[in-house]
Amino acid sequence: MRKGKLLIIDDESPVRDTVVGYLEDSQYEVIEASNGEDGLKLFRSAKPDLVLCDLKMPKIDGLVVLKTVLEESPNTPFIVVSGAGVMSDVVEALRLGASDYLVKPLSDLAVLEHSIEKNLSAANLMKQNESYRIRLEQTNQQLEADLKAGRKIQQKMLPDNRAVIHNYRLEHQIFPSHYLSGDFVDYFELNDHQFLFFIADVSGHGVSSAIITVLIKNYLQSLRGSWESDVHDQLSDPSRILAGLNLYLIEMGLDRHATMFVGVIDSAKAKLIYSCAAHFPTPILKRANDAEALPTDGLPVGLLPEAVYQNREKSLVDVSGMFLCSDGLLEIMDEASLVQKETRLLEIITESNNSLSEICAHFGMGNVEDIPDDITLLSVNNIGLI
Amino acid sequence: MRKGKLLIIDDESPVRDTVVGYLEDSQYEVIEASNGEDGLKLFRSAKPDLVLCDLKMPKIDGLVVLKTVLEESPNTPFIVVSGAGVMSDVVEALRLGASDYLVKPLSDLAVLEHSIEKNLSAANLMKQNESYRIRLEQTNQQLEADLKAGRKIQQKMLPDNRAVIHNYRLEHQIFPSHYLSGDFVDYFELNDHQFLFFIADVSGHGVSSAIITVLIKNYLQSLRGSWESDVHDQLSDPSRILAGLNLYLIEMGLDRHATMFVGVIDSAKAKLIYSCAAHFPTPILKRANDAEALPTDGLPVGLLPEAVYQNREKSLVDVSGMFLCSDGLLEIMDEASLVQKETRLLEIITESNNSLSEICAHFGMGNVEDIPDDITLLSVNNIGLI
Repeated sequence: MRKGKLLIIDDESPVRDTVVGYLEDSQYEVIEASNGEDGLKLFRSAKPDLVLCDLKMPKIDGLVVLKTVLEESPNTPFIVVSGAGVMSDVVEALRLGASDYLVKPLSDLAVLEHSIEKNLSAANLMKQNESYRIRLEQTNQQLEADLKAGRKIQQKMLPDNRAVIHNYRLEHQIFPSHYLSGDFVDYFELNDHQFLFFIADVSGHGVSSAIITVLIKNYLQSLRGSWESDVHDQLSDPSRILAGLNLYLIEMGLDRHATMFVGVIDSAKAKLIYSCAAHFPTPILKRANDAEALPTDGLPVGLLPEAVYQNREKSLVDVSGMFLCSDGLLEIMDEASLVQKETRLLEIITESNNSLSEICAHFGMGNVEDIPDDITLLSVNNIGLI
Repeated sequence: MRKGKLLIIDDESPVRDTVVGYLEDSQYEVIEASNGEDGLKLFRSAKPDLVLCDLKMPKIDGLVVLKTVLEESPNTPFIVVSGAGVMSDVVEALRLGASDYLVKPLSDLAVLEHSIEKNLSAANLMKQNESYRIRLEQTNQQLEADLKAGRKIQQKMLPDNRAVIHNYRLEHQIFPSHYLSGDFVDYFELNDHQFLFFIADVSGHGVSSAIITVLIKNYLQSLRGSWESDVHDQLSDPSRILAGLNLYLIEMGLDRHATMFVGVIDSAKAKLIYSCAAHFPTPILKRANDAEALPTDGLPVGLLPEAVYQNREKSLVDVSGMFLCSDGLLEIMDEASLVQKETRLLEIITESNNSLSEICAHFGMGNVEDIPDDITLLSVNNIGLI
């Protein structure tokens, strides 16, 4: 097997003959030129792996050949050969980027071969590094394209943003820490006076957590099917939803759990029924001049089969809106302790009109890079009261 | 702002003073040593960005310093300074890897500064390339870790391999073309004489298709819930499953469809009821001495709301097994046309004992790299007849 293609440029044919003979015996493919002009032409047409070039030649001399070759192909090893008396040219050649130099007469051709081998393998190493980088970039692009496609599908599972159900406007924003989110929200009308909304935060993030959000969406979707066929009324009972989902996730055996808050608003009775599965921070009720954190309890769903969930009720008379978020939001807040962060959040909601765009702007969302955890915001506003 | 930290090693203090003064005026941080030994110590402790070193010095001379520095830190630019009479040393220094050389006396310090700037920026470029590569590698690892975690979750959704239901053994193998698969199989017992099995192939592959497989798994899971509460008997009716799933996927609005084959085996009556949603290739029934491709029809699920699915029946008397696969398998077969591939597949199953390990070995699965599409294999074997 040939070890590489070498181009020899030298105006002295006895030198060329000796060198070519020796290198061909050493399994190299050797092409040759007797002057700089032909040498450059041959370099361009034959694309050798290495150039061995005399410095002193008629017409175009070695330094010009060197400059041209390195301009056109900076990674081609270039070994210069000089007479003994012209060391200043050798210095110039090395400074220009020649890989090595040899002094004529080339009495020991093994030294030449050694230099060729050394420089060829250095050039190969550079090529390998380059193709490794290109492969890394391509792999990255493929992986990212895959994750982005997955993210699109996940986003399509989210409900319409700024939906109006009865006299409530629901808005949500999910900022995934990775391409796919372990947070999820959904909401839909149950009948002419009730609608359901939930926020869920699956342990972990990324693809695996996103798959669990699909299961949660799906679980409620299948209950909806039952609802529409008038068999069950589980959907107007948040604690039953959580209890069922808890067992469902445990039965799936995926070893993932989620915190979750499920609320059903009865717009006719101005009443909220809710149940909580360890969701944190506590959802906030907003009135004209104050805000109140809802009392919650409960264990995450998907963790313990014996977990029990209870419903709580809250009057919504005078309540203009509700704000829910995942704990990812707390992580980007500056306050020192969790209690301080919760207090601050309550203040922010009190002072705000509870619109998501305003709240996002307050936290500089959209400009936050490298979010440590998924961040989800959900606002539910009574259009009549704001 | 300082432009970089330079180490000057020179035994002539007037030279050092001039150079240091000039470079400090040019906003460099400069540290100095008066001999090679101190120079190397300072190099190790202060980690300068560039070294400027005299060649002729007492104790350790410049070439030794150069060799040592480049051994310990190959990417540190090293400029040598020499007297006019020792060009052979300069040549040696350049060959060893010095970045540049300057000849004493250093009459024009702008030339020195130019060389320093040029070599510092070349070194910075190398550093940037290096840290780019490291960042690429890290990103890759994170993306892969995310996808691998997702794959694990997807695998946990698959049924027990080599499960025995009634007198049938069910085995499956999924070879994803990417980390997550757009193919899926599942099977479970319906009652003491019936069990269900299906194979599905979602359009595309990767995360987004994997999410649809989760929906499909889930859809049947929710029917199972209904089944167990004795409300519906949809699960023993493959065409009803496909019709329901078709509408469900369309309602989800994810713009993805899937081909699918659903079979219900009644082990008491030795009968197969099945329905097909464009799944290809056709499942194969295996008897002692021959094999038969099942007739199928139907449109993919998730594509057209008006799609209609029908049930077909087949006696399983004398049938020892069934083999199902996704069309990914056809893509790695050598035959020229689809018809030839199907014919060959029929031959392979006829000649085999329909065990997955044997079939995998036949196709060299496990050694196949860069699978163009997900490949799924499912075998259903009557233990009494094989």
